[in-house]
Amino acid sequence: MPASKEEVAAFLAAEFPQSKCVVESVGDRRAAVSHSIGVHELRPGGTVAGPVLMAVADVALYVAILGEIGIVPLVVTTSLNINFLRKPTAQARIIGECTLMKVGRSLIVGEVSLYSEGSSEPVAHVVGTYSIPPNRSGV
Amino acid sequence: MPASKEEVAAFLAAEFPQSKCVVESVGDRRAAVSHSIGVHELRPGGTVAGPVLMAVADVALYVAILGEIGIVPLVVTTSLNINFLRKPTAQARIIGECTLMKVGRSLIVGEVSLYSEGSSEPVAHVVGTYSIPPNRSGV
Amino acid sequence: MPASKEEVAAFLAAEFPQSKCVVESVGDRRAAVSHSIGVHELRPGGTVAGPVLMAVADVALYVAILGEIGIVPLVVTTSLNINFLRKPTAQARIIGECTLMKVGRSLIVGEVSLYSEGSSEPVAHVVGTYSIPPNRSGV
Amino acid sequence: MPASKEEVAAFLAAEFPQSKCVVESVGDRRAAVSHSIGVHELRPGGTVAGPVLMAVADVALYVAILGEIGIVPLVVTTSLNINFLRKPTAQARIIGECTLMKVGRSLIVGEVSLYSEGSSEPVAHVVGTYSIPPNRSGV
Repeated sequence: MPASKEEVAAFLAAEFPQSKCVVESVGDRRAAVSHSIGVHELRPGGTVAGPVLMAVADVALYVAILGEIGIVPLVVTTSLNINFLRKPTAQARIIGECTLMKVGRSLIVGEVSLYSEGSSEPVAHVVGTYSIPPNRSGV
Repeated sequence: MPASKEEVAAFLAAEFPQSKCVVESVGDRRAAVSHSIGVHELRPGGTVAGPVLMAVADVALYVAILGEIGIVPLVVTTSLNINFLRKPTAQARIIGECTLMKVGRSLIVGEVSLYSEGSSEPVAHVVGTYSIPPNRSGV
Repeated sequence: MPASKEEVAAFLAAEFPQSKCVVESVGDRRAAVSHSIGVHELRPGGTVAGPVLMAVADVALYVAILGEIGIVPLVVTTSLNINFLRKPTAQARIIGECTLMKVGRSLIVGEVSLYSEGSSEPVAHVVGTYSIPPNRSGV
Repeated sequence: MPASKEEVAAFLAAEFPQSKCVVESVGDRRAAVSHSIGVHELRPGGTVAGPVLMAVADVALYVAILGEIGIVPLVVTTSLNINFLRKPTAQARIIGECTLMKVGRSLIVGEVSLYSEGSSEPVAHVVGTYSIPPNRSGV
């Protein structure tokens, strides 16, 4: 039973209270999230810190998964591989666009392209793997 | 010209002002860093958030690199691959122990084992790749 | 100066004489290659061996890179990350479709989706990074 | 029920009949394998082909896993991440030394350092993840 954008957003707010990610869209094995950029996300020189990009990708994957299999609380990240491609700008939000490549019974694999909003060239690319508990029963 | 623990710590404080990582040791292509765990690092249920682990690993790699090649400001992460192995405890600091596997002219590759302090089993393992600017001249 | 499909195929035949990969298309930061499946590529049970998939992805990336920057002999793989998604069939060729995500001066990053020919769901997904020698002069 | 070196070698000979890997040691969550280098493993210029290194690492991980959990036929590779560190020599065997980092109920994660025999600096480093079927009953 897939979860709606509102259900996923409510779950994220409870589960990741520190996250500033906003759910932009979810459904059809895809999701998009955005993250505003302020002083806490920047490094000297005006680039977005790498861990911020990783966190946005992690949330984008999580959102796409919940949108697909429902609100399953025990989904956990098992691996995440990020390649940094270009320097993000400090003046734009980070957008993460996720596509799930495999939705198995115990493992889900997806990829995320991260952009500085308004640019068509990705600043980073992520592949993440998530494990699902054996008896997933969507809440 | 390698950099001392104090030089690396001073550079980190300027370059990563938001980071709470503490440099524990550096030298001989190795480094150890620690990160205290508080409410900002935890997810409901009491586990350390994945992006915190990624950030600690990134700093551990950065510290080991600066310790080896000196304070080169333009070193950038090009890729980072993390595998989550065990659930970290909320009651202990995270320790990151880095070993550089290759120190080339343009690329450096290292690995980091992350632990909950006091445990001998890693909570996560990271391999990271960093690129060095062509004319690196340690400051 | 990009290289044509014929130039890339000739270079591959000389550089990777053991490879059975066929160049299907190349250009516009993309490439497609195919690999026939016979007894040498199969494991008991009738699935394609993992290293065969890795090799096809490596060639697909190499072809896309040569198609973009020309016949540069010293391009080397620096990292390759593969996720196995579904069991390939023994009855179909493996197709690798590559898209380059970044073409930098010293590093190129691309992704490859691998399919059993005729299926629309990928059997594996690869992200690879390649380094280019400092003074690349296409032959 | 762990498997002995002889049991693992016999299983590999049946399961990976094309592989030239030799099991050197296994036990205690570790394994070492070797692979001779001949014309089929070399690329022009005298370096060992990347896919050969990936295949050796895959076997080293497989051997370490079977040595730990017994001869479980349905263990499959779910991801493999390789970093190429140095050019291997054509004159020495490739040695793969594996250590398992996590042996869970459904996922096993290990790392492999690959060497040209006689050298102490690794030519490549691999992290691999394997999934175990739900009802693993060692044969």
